[in-house]
Amino acid sequence: MADKKLVEAITSMETDFAQWYTDVVKKAELIDYTSVKGCMVIKPAGYAIWENIQSQLDKMFKESGVENVYLPMFIPESLLQKEKDHVEGFAPEVAWVTHGGLNPLQERLCVRPTSETLFCDFYKNEIQSYRDLPKVYNQWCSVVRWEKETRPFLRSREFLWQEGHTAHATAEDAEARTIQMLNIYAQFLEEYLAIPVIKGQKTEKEKFAGAEATYTIEALMHDGKALQSGTSHNFGDGFAKAFGIQYTDKDNKLKHVHQTSWGMTTRLIGAIIMVHGDDSGLVLPPAIAPTQVMIIPIQQHKEGVLEKAAELSEKLGNFRVKVDDSDKSPGWKFSEQEMRGIPIRVEIGPKDIAANKCVICRRDTREKIEANLDELESKVSEVLETMQKEMLERARAHREEHTYVAKNFDEFVKIFEEKTGFVKAMWCEEQACEDAIKEKLAVTSRCMPFEQEQLSDVCVCCGKPAKKMVYWGKAY
Amino acid sequence: MADKKLVEAITSMETDFAQWYTDVVKKAELIDYTSVKGCMVIKPAGYAIWENIQSQLDKMFKESGVENVYLPMFIPESLLQKEKDHVEGFAPEVAWVTHGGLNPLQERLCVRPTSETLFCDFYKNEIQSYRDLPKVYNQWCSVVRWEKETRPFLRSREFLWQEGHTAHATAEDAEARTIQMLNIYAQFLEEYLAIPVIKGQKTEKEKFAGAEATYTIEALMHDGKALQSGTSHNFGDGFAKAFGIQYTDKDNKLKHVHQTSWGMTTRLIGAIIMVHGDDSGLVLPPAIAPTQVMIIPIQQHKEGVLEKAAELSEKLGNFRVKVDDSDKSPGWKFSEQEMRGIPIRVEIGPKDIAANKCVICRRDTREKIEANLDELESKVSEVLETMQKEMLERARAHREEHTYVAKNFDEFVKIFEEKTGFVKAMWCEEQACEDAIKEKLAVTSRCMPFEQEQLSDVCVCCGKPAKKMVYWGKAY
Repeated sequence: MADKKLVEAITSMETDFAQWYTDVVKKAELIDYTSVKGCMVIKPAGYAIWENIQSQLDKMFKESGVENVYLPMFIPESLLQKEKDHVEGFAPEVAWVTHGGLNPLQERLCVRPTSETLFCDFYKNEIQSYRDLPKVYNQWCSVVRWEKETRPFLRSREFLWQEGHTAHATAEDAEARTIQMLNIYAQFLEEYLAIPVIKGQKTEKEKFAGAEATYTIEALMHDGKALQSGTSHNFGDGFAKAFGIQYTDKDNKLKHVHQTSWGMTTRLIGAIIMVHGDDSGLVLPPAIAPTQVMIIPIQQHKEGVLEKAAELSEKLGNFRVKVDDSDKSPGWKFSEQEMRGIPIRVEIGPKDIAANKCVICRRDTREKIEANLDELESKVSEVLETMQKEMLERARAHREEHTYVAKNFDEFVKIFEEKTGFVKAMWCEEQACEDAIKEKLAVTSRCMPFEQEQLSDVCVCCGKPAKKMVYWGKAY
Repeated sequence: MADKKLVEAITSMETDFAQWYTDVVKKAELIDYTSVKGCMVIKPAGYAIWENIQSQLDKMFKESGVENVYLPMFIPESLLQKEKDHVEGFAPEVAWVTHGGLNPLQERLCVRPTSETLFCDFYKNEIQSYRDLPKVYNQWCSVVRWEKETRPFLRSREFLWQEGHTAHATAEDAEARTIQMLNIYAQFLEEYLAIPVIKGQKTEKEKFAGAEATYTIEALMHDGKALQSGTSHNFGDGFAKAFGIQYTDKDNKLKHVHQTSWGMTTRLIGAIIMVHGDDSGLVLPPAIAPTQVMIIPIQQHKEGVLEKAAELSEKLGNFRVKVDDSDKSPGWKFSEQEMRGIPIRVEIGPKDIAANKCVICRRDTREKIEANLDELESKVSEVLETMQKEMLERARAHREEHTYVAKNFDEFVKIFEEKTGFVKAMWCEEQACEDAIKEKLAVTSRCMPFEQEQLSDVCVCCGKPAKKMVYWGKAY
């Protein structure tokens, strides 16, 4: 049985979800706070999750033709200002470098909040002819946004991400790449993180500063709040015109390129915690878990137990496996394995060894499965697969249970007063209604889903003719 | 035959080595300059080399027990100032953030030039007991140093690196880890980059700001100048005392930890260029080359040629292989493959196909080897291995040829007036002699090698009793 002390160290989800989240990120040793306000240390257990996210996403990117590059972390103020909407969106929340060494700079530099302007400055020289297109570049780096309120992984002044920036000959090519990357994001969340998402387009009000269209994947957390989990932007030729990025086409005419950008961040770790976690801590989807199997010897001082544990570890070499042979009690080890969200625990003691079996315990359901040691590998493989599949199914079921429909404003208000979740409702496409809804309920439009439904003919807010079905929700 | 136009675009090494270097980094498409003075774009061909360096080094790190983390990019000024020598070393060359969004900061933050102070601040809370030791953490990130003169990869205001930071219970453990990492660096350079190195200790004058001892690996470039290629520092308990990092030992006494740090940077790409490059461009060691084999079809418009090239590419799937099926001429493709340093070119045309053979061309020696298509895979494997081995041997021979011995100051001066290379000479351990030598010859002590020789009894500069043999050189 798991030791209670470690578990008691975290607040229960029902009592206070926000405190539960903070407790889990600390007790599962994902992060630590620092002397730098709003910035965190990502500790080994947290960073290893990010490394797995990176390596899988990067593989999917490269299979789709993406090449990695690295651009400077500084943007001269004049460069940031070249695209009007973009600078308005970002200037209020950037960090400014004003001195280099002992001297004031001639022009101040901001620490990149995102790198559209740098990529444009780069592409301007890089792209001359249609032969140079498309450019499908990405970089893994950190960015800085001077947020006032911060929470680990979800909103911090510095965070890690990837930002893809592409340039294309035609508007169609740019749109196709924008959607292609959104689909890769959605596939990654569902297949690897076991998180189902709603794919859709952001409204004018919610779109990225400088974009023609922003697409998003939206996920629902355990507490019913939405988390924007990845975005993909189509810039049209707006940046190209502001920066003068032109190419000579096959017809010998000079044309502006069409651009996109798309990004995913360490916020995904927050999503994993808030979709799958429970009152014992983290629950990691097997596909992304840095350690998939923790072997915990019982009565490890007895002859042959540690040796058998090591032997099983070797037998399970195709998985990411560890043995906890520390001098803690088995109960404490169980609690730690649960807190850290390690998908499978294998318990092996003298009696098990005598019977040539062991106990497999699934982190998500706590189901205990007896396994013959001779078929341990196939059993572990089967349990990991089942767990990955069922975690996605459970998350999908949870989202369905917390997705509501509102046909008029009274219904809309009532739902948000009583519940937290996604609300599907019709909208007239006027920002005034989004503003009114946000003002009254602290609810925002999450997206106009690709899968539209005609729930009614009128806007849920103003009653005028409806143009789009929208997912609404409270968001992180 | 290779097309001359691309080759003619670069200055020859003999004419102007510095210009040759700059030409190669541009023409091999490794970097581009930016609007941010002293910062560069690392383009796909350059970044892919860094990715291979990262992935191999990271693997070696992890095998030695290293765990990755991520710490903030900002350091509050008060934190930077806690260790006296350290702040004196770095404060003159850091970039300062003074504003967040629209508001001035209460305390300015520097962009990390290195993260000792942040790790100390982190370890102070993280380490309580001997059970928490050792901590062997590393991060991959970028750092900023406000250099006045910059050169791509060798010295730039922002560069990519890894920085390992460890904490240990005893001085012996710290020293052992410092040397262990230096050995990993040396092994990595020799086995993967085909660059032989001199391992040794830096003098007091040249050691890292705040370190008790700095160890270094020094490599000799083609022009005879030295490149410091990786350093490993033992801090003793100096930082621990400044930051109050203490643990309760088994004997229940409170003790300070002993710390180390060690780093390698994108500068290694500069080393690869300057050790192996030639007048046709880059030459990449097979072990680190992003593309190891470029298949170039001859008369590709003829039936079956492109198909055969694709078939060979598949056959060579165990290597990093590409087919250049662009509409450029074969000669131009040869030049590009050479400029980019791709180790092997496979030429395949209609006559080759008829004879069931192809031509393998080695980038370093330009040797052409006829290979039967049925044994292409083993042939390519053999050529890549031979090339890797011979590149190291050639670099070692070059270093030996450019390593001289000076027994008195006249010899010392004469060598540096006539030649560029390493000079081995005895030294009294007084900084005055290092200062005098630097002043007169622009030469610095590179290291006191672990393999000491007793060349004479007196210091090459002042004639007083000698204590150490030193490698001296002009350095990047």
